[in-house]
Amino acid sequence: MAFFRILETLYPPLTAPLGELVMNGRAGEWLRNGMLFPMLGYFGPEGTFTHQALLALRPDASARPYSSVAAALLAVRAGAVEAAVVPIENSVEGGVSATLDYLSAPDEPPLSIQAEVLVNVNFDLAVRPGTALSEVNTVITHPHAAAQCRGWLAKHLPEATIVERGSTAAAAKDVSDPTSAFDAAICAPVARELYHLVAAASDINDNTGAVTRFVLVGRPGNIPAPTGADKTTFVAYMRDNHSGALLEILQQLAVRGVNLTRIESRPTKTTLGSYCFSIDAEGHLADARVAGALQGLKRICADVVFLGSYPRADKLSPLIVHGSSDAEYATSKVWLDALR
Amino acid sequence: MAFFRILETLYPPLTAPLGELVMNGRAGEWLRNGMLFPMLGYFGPEGTFTHQALLALRPDASARPYSSVAAALLAVRAGAVEAAVVPIENSVEGGVSATLDYLSAPDEPPLSIQAEVLVNVNFDLAVRPGTALSEVNTVITHPHAAAQCRGWLAKHLPEATIVERGSTAAAAKDVSDPTSAFDAAICAPVARELYHLVAAASDINDNTGAVTRFVLVGRPGNIPAPTGADKTTFVAYMRDNHSGALLEILQQLAVRGVNLTRIESRPTKTTLGSYCFSIDAEGHLADARVAGALQGLKRICADVVFLGSYPRADKLSPLIVHGSSDAEYATSKVWLDALR
Amino acid sequence: MAFFRILETLYPPLTAPLGELVMNGRAGEWLRNGMLFPMLGYFGPEGTFTHQALLALRPDASARPYSSVAAALLAVRAGAVEAAVVPIENSVEGGVSATLDYLSAPDEPPLSIQAEVLVNVNFDLAVRPGTALSEVNTVITHPHAAAQCRGWLAKHLPEATIVERGSTAAAAKDVSDPTSAFDAAICAPVARELYHLVAAASDINDNTGAVTRFVLVGRPGNIPAPTGADKTTFVAYMRDNHSGALLEILQQLAVRGVNLTRIESRPTKTTLGSYCFSIDAEGHLADARVAGALQGLKRICADVVFLGSYPRADKLSPLIVHGSSDAEYATSKVWLDALR
Amino acid sequence: MAFFRILETLYPPLTAPLGELVMNGRAGEWLRNGMLFPMLGYFGPEGTFTHQALLALRPDASARPYSSVAAALLAVRAGAVEAAVVPIENSVEGGVSATLDYLSAPDEPPLSIQAEVLVNVNFDLAVRPGTALSEVNTVITHPHAAAQCRGWLAKHLPEATIVERGSTAAAAKDVSDPTSAFDAAICAPVARELYHLVAAASDINDNTGAVTRFVLVGRPGNIPAPTGADKTTFVAYMRDNHSGALLEILQQLAVRGVNLTRIESRPTKTTLGSYCFSIDAEGHLADARVAGALQGLKRICADVVFLGSYPRADKLSPLIVHGSSDAEYATSKVWLDALR
Repeated sequence: MAFFRILETLYPPLTAPLGELVMNGRAGEWLRNGMLFPMLGYFGPEGTFTHQALLALRPDASARPYSSVAAALLAVRAGAVEAAVVPIENSVEGGVSATLDYLSAPDEPPLSIQAEVLVNVNFDLAVRPGTALSEVNTVITHPHAAAQCRGWLAKHLPEATIVERGSTAAAAKDVSDPTSAFDAAICAPVARELYHLVAAASDINDNTGAVTRFVLVGRPGNIPAPTGADKTTFVAYMRDNHSGALLEILQQLAVRGVNLTRIESRPTKTTLGSYCFSIDAEGHLADARVAGALQGLKRICADVVFLGSYPRADKLSPLIVHGSSDAEYATSKVWLDALR
Repeated sequence: MAFFRILETLYPPLTAPLGELVMNGRAGEWLRNGMLFPMLGYFGPEGTFTHQALLALRPDASARPYSSVAAALLAVRAGAVEAAVVPIENSVEGGVSATLDYLSAPDEPPLSIQAEVLVNVNFDLAVRPGTALSEVNTVITHPHAAAQCRGWLAKHLPEATIVERGSTAAAAKDVSDPTSAFDAAICAPVARELYHLVAAASDINDNTGAVTRFVLVGRPGNIPAPTGADKTTFVAYMRDNHSGALLEILQQLAVRGVNLTRIESRPTKTTLGSYCFSIDAEGHLADARVAGALQGLKRICADVVFLGSYPRADKLSPLIVHGSSDAEYATSKVWLDALR
Repeated sequence: MAFFRILETLYPPLTAPLGELVMNGRAGEWLRNGMLFPMLGYFGPEGTFTHQALLALRPDASARPYSSVAAALLAVRAGAVEAAVVPIENSVEGGVSATLDYLSAPDEPPLSIQAEVLVNVNFDLAVRPGTALSEVNTVITHPHAAAQCRGWLAKHLPEATIVERGSTAAAAKDVSDPTSAFDAAICAPVARELYHLVAAASDINDNTGAVTRFVLVGRPGNIPAPTGADKTTFVAYMRDNHSGALLEILQQLAVRGVNLTRIESRPTKTTLGSYCFSIDAEGHLADARVAGALQGLKRICADVVFLGSYPRADKLSPLIVHGSSDAEYATSKVWLDALR
Repeated sequence: MAFFRILETLYPPLTAPLGELVMNGRAGEWLRNGMLFPMLGYFGPEGTFTHQALLALRPDASARPYSSVAAALLAVRAGAVEAAVVPIENSVEGGVSATLDYLSAPDEPPLSIQAEVLVNVNFDLAVRPGTALSEVNTVITHPHAAAQCRGWLAKHLPEATIVERGSTAAAAKDVSDPTSAFDAAICAPVARELYHLVAAASDINDNTGAVTRFVLVGRPGNIPAPTGADKTTFVAYMRDNHSGALLEILQQLAVRGVNLTRIESRPTKTTLGSYCFSIDAEGHLADARVAGALQGLKRICADVVFLGSYPRADKLSPLIVHGSSDAEYATSKVWLDALR
């Protein structure tokens, strides 16, 4: 039955033991030809921009969708997958808050971001092969996607009926059924390909240039080697809510020449008026300036949660201001040691 | 036909002239008894937490859902509604990025936030009157809501089939149809009430305590009077991406004793590596310290977009540090004028 | 009697009424030809570098030495002189601490610095006309001057006896007496000229390049017009001795783009561990950024004592960083006023 | 001849080899009873407040006056004395600038401050035993001392003739000669005792409470052990004269919780507009926060000259702000090492 896609099928339960996974068609693929392939999780369903991000990061990996960011990240912790792809910034389909929340868990070491990728958020009008644009009378998609393509729809399909579905990927799957009640889906290119549809039109979103950032998250302590163009992500928890607390946090970074690329305040869930700051900084934990800043923050903050050092998607090298290079750290250490 | 809810019906077109609105049932209500009632817009559909936020802010207002944050805010600009309620922080149903983007528009004065409200994000399992929990075999809801109630569902309805719908409100509406194929919807309390359902269970989300912040947005320049417990929202655009730029922005606030309650960096869409900072600060534009900080930021930033001063939902008075009260500003001005 | 120079004669008493001054030879000069000339005071005696500074600032003024910085500044307050020249930085003959202390007085408005001048501290070996360097067997000078010329003396006059006197000017006066027991004085060029001596050698100090800064101090509220290359001097008293208090003071200056040229912490005499900061900043009280910084400091400090805005001796124009010009202050004010 | 006190006698030449010193009466004392006593130098002459400071610091030490701060400090470098006492702050008799200049020398390791002492600057009116106050007609002293006692003199000795001498100690020595032309000297208590005079009056300075700070300076690298109440002195040379350079220097201290007790900007002698900052900070080089701050400054500054860690004269323990204790430094290091 076309309209009913049962979550249990699409999103395998996190708690499923590995033995059960082997019985599953998807998991069987994992062991195909007697070879073990790495399995990556992601915030599904299949055919979303998160799925597209995973394919951009690891085109050859086996991939397994989870029904929530939390489930995908718990699967990493449980060892069901090697790592998982989740949105971390500006996602049109949600999930960002959950990502920041679930990277760390009480009484568990935090997970470790291992890579990031930027995906352009461009929608296709996907139809079954043979359907012309002029033949499209009914369109199915997620309400947010419909809103983003409102202008294009008003101009090119002013008479079409627009019906909502729980995800753009589900919409594409629906259209792929030859008996579908719908002529077209608004969806990501990856969903169009997955369900063997063709694009009656591409890039139909009214605002072009929107980009979502996704990260590949692995088990704790799994830090990629520095590349010279890296980012470090962490959360700093204010010790108390005094005026100027954020300034003090930023000064720990500034005095070591560590530049930020993202900062976001978030209320902590424990105390009213208590905040933490989710921060992306240029550089790698292996860089003296980054290590020094983290150590400084650890001293003055209630807590600091390190969430990974990983290559930047844009491959930009950081500007190393005077006095913040590893060489200058080493030289000043020699000078200091001679004094003592 | 239960499954097809046409967007045009649920979300009236923004461009509809006021005359046409009168023809609409909802708009007719607006003129009922020959009386003009203020009409508020909101990011719909009906029955979402945004709708619930509107009812909390203005229980007696007439309300009209829009299919996107952008559409709701454009309706404010166009005069179709007096103001609109949109999510601005931590929304489980998205929209936050859009809110921050569309409060200001090129070549137009920015809209003005007039009030905020915090809504607890708690889900009901809503059923038609007479349905017992033990009779629930099929549940319909939005995938994100299903993910948030995963633990409860596994424990209390392990055998139920979960089906996705584009919004929790749409799910509730579906269940309200006596011929519905579904026994229950996971939805907000407001949707349950709207569709005359009853709660087979309440607060079924696994994590309690989640709160979403919504704002009421009005036309530019419409600033509520200070209450003594106010917030001011603005966006500061960095002049150039030098190291320490954020520190300079925060120092403009700190030296005047202005405390922050939220900060979020956002890439500007014009230049790679260019950022703006979306900030909520304690205090009101009428406070000397806030006015001084905004003026200082205007001088050093590429631009500052003022988005409103409005009463805080939590009614907390700001801590006025020494030297930042209006009286101290006035006294120091007298001193300075005597020198010159 | 050559060795006794009575202080009362050299340094007229501060409390002398103007009528008495007329009776004095020096004061008579002041009324010579029935014309009133402005009278300037200075930290004497005649023939010191302070005297030289006065002649550099106002070559045509009548000048009257005082026996201490305090006496010279009290004479300004009392109206006995129009203004006074005193050392403020790096003086080899002392007085700097007193200058900073006596510019402000309890329950009186602070005096106002009106000009500054830099004087090269170079010593002459001054002899009576006709005395050759080879004939110098005895040298008289102040001990500090002897110490500064130690290397030159060891090389050129290794056999000479060095005798100390209370000031270099007194030494020169002594040598000018044809019956003097001394062959040469180490003194400032102004003392050599004053006492009609000639230089057997010039610039005999071991370290060349030493410069002392002197200021011309007038009555309160007497502020020279801005020239575009000005300095502003003030003292900021910390409100309490918390860690970071100085940082807060400097941030009030930095956020308005006001650059410092001198800072000196000084213990206040009231409380143990309480400090004030004596500061020279670029710019004039008439500059918006300077006025804003002073107002900000007045708010956060226990007190701020404004000591004058005056042309810089080096005529260097300040670097106006982005956002700190008067025009940018005015523009941002217009923007702010439009919001309110 | 009373008036002629030859500098060579009073201030032994720096270059005198140790063998010669043995021949000298003063140096003989050094070897008295065949025992080697440590010899300390000081900025003389005998009987000044600097001498008094030396006696307060090391009552039993042998002491040798030098004619300038530079000479005293060179004697330390040359090994002629173990250490030397020199004024460093607020001295009424000068020398402060020289002290800061000569602690470091080109191409030589800087000397090391080993102790500090605060001396109350109170003057005696010293007379030969048997002279009554009413018999005092002539007073001899240094001009600065006369100026500081002006009010007392006007009240108690309105008819006395005041004559100037090169130092207050020289004045006392003069009066100690029974054939002296003077009845009394204004001098430090130490000079009165040294020359066997008695106080006709004590504490005759108009402003009481003045305090001068002296330091004991030893050879490079000679650092006293931490006491828990220590001070660290250093000079930081700005890398370039950009606006905010001082702020950056202070931030290196502030982010590590290092508090200042003195700061003084000083022009460097090399470039116009180039500054260094002479700083006293709470804590000891052995404290992690001080070492970290010095290392940070070394990185960002053109140079940092460490001038010593030594016990505070006031024995005040520093306030250790949260995150700046050695224990917190160690804990954060463990945390950081576990991440890497």
